[in-house]
Amino acid sequence: MTPAFSNLIGTGTPILTLSDAAQDIYDSVRDLPIVSPHGHCDPRWFAENTPFADPVEVLIHPDQGVLRMLYSQGVSLEDLGVGVAAHQREGRAIFRTFARHFHKFRGTPTDLWMATTLARIFGITAPLNADNADAVYDKIDAEIKSTQMYPHALLASFNIEVLATTDSALDDLAHHKAARKHKLRGKVVPTFCPDAVLDPRRGDFKANVVKLAEITDQDTSSFEGYLEALRDRRAYFMAYGATATVHSLPELGTCYMTERRAATLFAKAMGGKIAPKEAQSLYGHMLTEMAQMSAEDGLVMQIHAGTRVNTNKEMFERFGPNTGADVPQSVNFIDGLDALLNRVGHSRDINIVVFTPDASACERELAPMAGHWPALRLGSPWRFRHGVNGIARYLDHVVESTGYWNLAGFSDNTRAFMSIPARHDLWRRGVSLHLAQQRQRGVLGRGDVDEIAQMLCRDLAIDAYKFSSFV
Amino acid sequence: MTPAFSNLIGTGTPILTLSDAAQDIYDSVRDLPIVSPHGHCDPRWFAENTPFADPVEVLIHPDQGVLRMLYSQGVSLEDLGVGVAAHQREGRAIFRTFARHFHKFRGTPTDLWMATTLARIFGITAPLNADNADAVYDKIDAEIKSTQMYPHALLASFNIEVLATTDSALDDLAHHKAARKHKLRGKVVPTFCPDAVLDPRRGDFKANVVKLAEITDQDTSSFEGYLEALRDRRAYFMAYGATATVHSLPELGTCYMTERRAATLFAKAMGGKIAPKEAQSLYGHMLTEMAQMSAEDGLVMQIHAGTRVNTNKEMFERFGPNTGADVPQSVNFIDGLDALLNRVGHSRDINIVVFTPDASACERELAPMAGHWPALRLGSPWRFRHGVNGIARYLDHVVESTGYWNLAGFSDNTRAFMSIPARHDLWRRGVSLHLAQQRQRGVLGRGDVDEIAQMLCRDLAIDAYKFSSFV
Amino acid sequence: MTPAFSNLIGTGTPILTLSDAAQDIYDSVRDLPIVSPHGHCDPRWFAENTPFADPVEVLIHPDQGVLRMLYSQGVSLEDLGVGVAAHQREGRAIFRTFARHFHKFRGTPTDLWMATTLARIFGITAPLNADNADAVYDKIDAEIKSTQMYPHALLASFNIEVLATTDSALDDLAHHKAARKHKLRGKVVPTFCPDAVLDPRRGDFKANVVKLAEITDQDTSSFEGYLEALRDRRAYFMAYGATATVHSLPELGTCYMTERRAATLFAKAMGGKIAPKEAQSLYGHMLTEMAQMSAEDGLVMQIHAGTRVNTNKEMFERFGPNTGADVPQSVNFIDGLDALLNRVGHSRDINIVVFTPDASACERELAPMAGHWPALRLGSPWRFRHGVNGIARYLDHVVESTGYWNLAGFSDNTRAFMSIPARHDLWRRGVSLHLAQQRQRGVLGRGDVDEIAQMLCRDLAIDAYKFSSFV
Repeated sequence: MTPAFSNLIGTGTPILTLSDAAQDIYDSVRDLPIVSPHGHCDPRWFAENTPFADPVEVLIHPDQGVLRMLYSQGVSLEDLGVGVAAHQREGRAIFRTFARHFHKFRGTPTDLWMATTLARIFGITAPLNADNADAVYDKIDAEIKSTQMYPHALLASFNIEVLATTDSALDDLAHHKAARKHKLRGKVVPTFCPDAVLDPRRGDFKANVVKLAEITDQDTSSFEGYLEALRDRRAYFMAYGATATVHSLPELGTCYMTERRAATLFAKAMGGKIAPKEAQSLYGHMLTEMAQMSAEDGLVMQIHAGTRVNTNKEMFERFGPNTGADVPQSVNFIDGLDALLNRVGHSRDINIVVFTPDASACERELAPMAGHWPALRLGSPWRFRHGVNGIARYLDHVVESTGYWNLAGFSDNTRAFMSIPARHDLWRRGVSLHLAQQRQRGVLGRGDVDEIAQMLCRDLAIDAYKFSSFV
Repeated sequence: MTPAFSNLIGTGTPILTLSDAAQDIYDSVRDLPIVSPHGHCDPRWFAENTPFADPVEVLIHPDQGVLRMLYSQGVSLEDLGVGVAAHQREGRAIFRTFARHFHKFRGTPTDLWMATTLARIFGITAPLNADNADAVYDKIDAEIKSTQMYPHALLASFNIEVLATTDSALDDLAHHKAARKHKLRGKVVPTFCPDAVLDPRRGDFKANVVKLAEITDQDTSSFEGYLEALRDRRAYFMAYGATATVHSLPELGTCYMTERRAATLFAKAMGGKIAPKEAQSLYGHMLTEMAQMSAEDGLVMQIHAGTRVNTNKEMFERFGPNTGADVPQSVNFIDGLDALLNRVGHSRDINIVVFTPDASACERELAPMAGHWPALRLGSPWRFRHGVNGIARYLDHVVESTGYWNLAGFSDNTRAFMSIPARHDLWRRGVSLHLAQQRQRGVLGRGDVDEIAQMLCRDLAIDAYKFSSFV
Repeated sequence: MTPAFSNLIGTGTPILTLSDAAQDIYDSVRDLPIVSPHGHCDPRWFAENTPFADPVEVLIHPDQGVLRMLYSQGVSLEDLGVGVAAHQREGRAIFRTFARHFHKFRGTPTDLWMATTLARIFGITAPLNADNADAVYDKIDAEIKSTQMYPHALLASFNIEVLATTDSALDDLAHHKAARKHKLRGKVVPTFCPDAVLDPRRGDFKANVVKLAEITDQDTSSFEGYLEALRDRRAYFMAYGATATVHSLPELGTCYMTERRAATLFAKAMGGKIAPKEAQSLYGHMLTEMAQMSAEDGLVMQIHAGTRVNTNKEMFERFGPNTGADVPQSVNFIDGLDALLNRVGHSRDINIVVFTPDASACERELAPMAGHWPALRLGSPWRFRHGVNGIARYLDHVVESTGYWNLAGFSDNTRAFMSIPARHDLWRRGVSLHLAQQRQRGVLGRGDVDEIAQMLCRDLAIDAYKFSSFV
């Protein structure tokens, strides 16, 4: 590890050159602590605090963006060792392949994330290429064995205030339990992910509900018992610090039916005899139920809508999800959120944060809706919109209809722990470019800019996710 | 009122700082007279010329954008006195609430409109906040009692050349009649809004058609009589200066059927036995009929497509429309305008101006269509697209496919009379920023820029709305 | 013709002023040879090398953009001599009409293409208008009679390396055959356009397939024979230098069925008894078949999706296609390409280049898909997106999700031969503006910028279209 590691986070050589106006704004936010309200880090890391396996685990495998670009350029996932255990794969050869293609990431956020991570965490400032691949590999491989690169140390040196993981509703949170025993600098909390026990279209739905009954000691043979079991689980997650839930759905459809009708459909689903349309309705109803539970217990509800996952069938069959074949699709937010918002959207006490990768629906529908409904907040730019230009477009598209105060800050949404500082850094640079333009166009004054920069880079996330007691 | 009031309109302290290049362009258009071809001012103001009630009536209630942002931040419409008569509400308390939240409008056009209005009309340049709320309220409340703030005086000092209101087809235009007796500086004209007598899906359709018969002394029991009554009404509006009609519809569907078929559906509609699909078809046919009448009598046809209104059901039931729950939705302009344009779109003698808040359909379909059909002109950016960045995006999206000469200038679309100068001022600043960039990118030369600035800020609206005899 | 003609191509007076940063980049690419992988030039020009008829043929008739803007402004196509033979039309009067309206093209790419063409090819730098119309007409009319303005000479002086035409699958390529006998500087190659023999929804489908049988001496009464005939034709086109095929479709739907099912539908289509849905399926299946043939023979597959053609019915009946009434429409790329890509999309050895004029679907779906599927490359901005701002938006929308290495460079897509240098010049300026901004925002360094500029302006097209043996 390079000396003065922690100083490098946020104070190293700038990767991106900014105009003076943007640089001033950036300087005011670059050293802010990191709030990461949604991502896919493994809680085991914080429970066990063991070193990462190799550079491949750290930089290549956890990032769909890396895999998809390499795949698009003709590199097979086999050659990247996807699906092979760390001790069995040829890390150095994989890294060489990555390095040989690295220039093809130019213009994508991955390029900037990677360069920032290499420079600030590993002190590697030369552009990665085929010639220096082995040397870079060796340096990273050596560094990550140092205790300063163990998860606990990184959490501290990354200056992370709060990090939320994503956890199945059926998870016992054992890793979170274990992690809490350590005195971590930086709060690590779970997020309640109940889709597996909510969506009757899933093949394992019934088994999951049965497991839910066991875990909660509730009788899920009745609809009331099922709702009670869900309430119980939510409370369990809250006891371990969870402040939020999350749903992921390609389309978006919420509805609200009578409890009798919902109970009937639930019974059909458990009997395995529910029609596809009915299953869809029941899931839509359960989303509204979850929103109502949020109104009761205060958990923030996150909705990720508009990603068609696993569009490459052969790849999915061989390598599973998260390998780079997810594609945004069009979403109708007006109809999709109608039932839910008309039921629970009138209060500012409940927070529903909605994310979408569909830039046009975001601008047309979701941003104006977030500028109206008290309960609704607009999530940060989602998937494929994380580069500085995507961030600038997002803010340009939404601010005039939503305002800054109805945004939810930034979610890094990553399973690549090492890249978290770089991702927040790029967001902060994107925010700075946006705000510099707002000043230059006369939309905001200097005082506004400083306040809004701080909000976008930290405070809005704390407020939207109810993290104030953690920071 | 501050001294030198009329000078302040257009020549006061700039709110927005512009680059030198944009400022030069802005300087050339900021003092142009205002042409307002579509809005919701009350013609009674110009008939009666009585003072406005209080600052709440002037600044808060008439603007959906104000209500929606405050509501989104947890302020109830009760606390804003919506639905309460002016003499019964607590104006000062309402204004305090508004002021306390005013910083949350930062980044939205409302912020700039309000700041411009406060500065230029009331001489209040300090940013509004909780501390100065009472003082600002008192100052405005005092100012609006001065005769210089009565509607007639404002019309003159705002330098409004033409102002079109929106009036039900069943309206007797008594206020317009009365207003014409005054020697107004600035022409105030009605706009013919016939949807209430065209759309059989409305509960009051039949009653409206019966009333139409009474007013026009036509026999609307037959389809021919119904058409004749509509022609009659259009002529009546034209006699009071109307140059345009307007239709507002969430989706867009025009069609053309035989007269026999239309007559059959009309009879069904009047008999109360029309199926929803038939009702939709009849309305779609009537839009085409109205376009044909425009080809006969020369009235400009305006179409506002793509706003789903009143999406918040509870709010609508309690407070009615226009309280901030309207959301843009996707529109198909190719199919939606197919019948109408293939029937009457071939001539440059008829003007059909189409507006939409759907930025993607506007760029994809509507802008290229306006660059083809002689009868079609592209309306200004609509709802949620009125900030400087929205204006810049609109022009960037449409000019290369539509050209400037197929645009219809700017419509302020407001019922907030006091904000009209500020809205036109922001449009002029947005236009200036756009044109400065066009120069900087080498798309336009200096001479072009001056000509096009003048067109976008005044001449295109005069031409599109056939106002040339008024100015 | 002005002296030093060939020098004027690319080195004349700049039409567009660029910032210093953009100018530096532009200087590095403006003199690159032109690669034109898709357009509608007439191969007869290169077979016969006779002069163009008049300025109308050169500048007005071949460009939909010119016709549509003039038509939108009330000029009839009759008055432009559309459909009238060159020797019968009044060229000078037509040109006067064009010149009188020329200022209305301001802000559109046509304005810049025309100005560049007039300046660089004809040495006319004064803005075209009613006053100089006759003089300009006379000058152009005189110039085009010089042998230096014959097609062969222009091909050389335009510095065109490769020019692909578009040719019906039933064409005997006689003009290409004849053109090959000349020693042309610049390779002219055909493109295989098989939709007429693939789409059973066309009225002439059966006749076309019968003709296909005759040409190829295959028995197209069986599905196998039909496929064989198509293979045969592809080979024939390849023998004349074709490297690509092209399909144009308003919607996009590919599918894959059993050969037995396809054979059944084909028999129905030939029997004239196929239902519309079946015809659509068969065409969708044939697209996948064509992709599979591309995997075999290496022809690049081009797909143009999302243009509704001939939306003005009266105009189409009187003047035929390509007169300016085509409008972009929304496309679903995920579902539309699903069958095709899951069948043949996994290999980088086959190139499928997809174009769309739908900016929102391009950003949302197509760009991320091109960043995933090895076989897929993203075509250049299409129809209505060819101005500098459209180019800038295109690159801004797609680069962060697709990367530069999955793009296919620039296609001028024109039948206006004289405008080709101007179109590539405008692309190069747009690319330079984009890359200058990427530098200014810190996304790319100087070295990257130079490499990527060269790629976008030449190398990516050579690679995507497999032209490397020609250059």
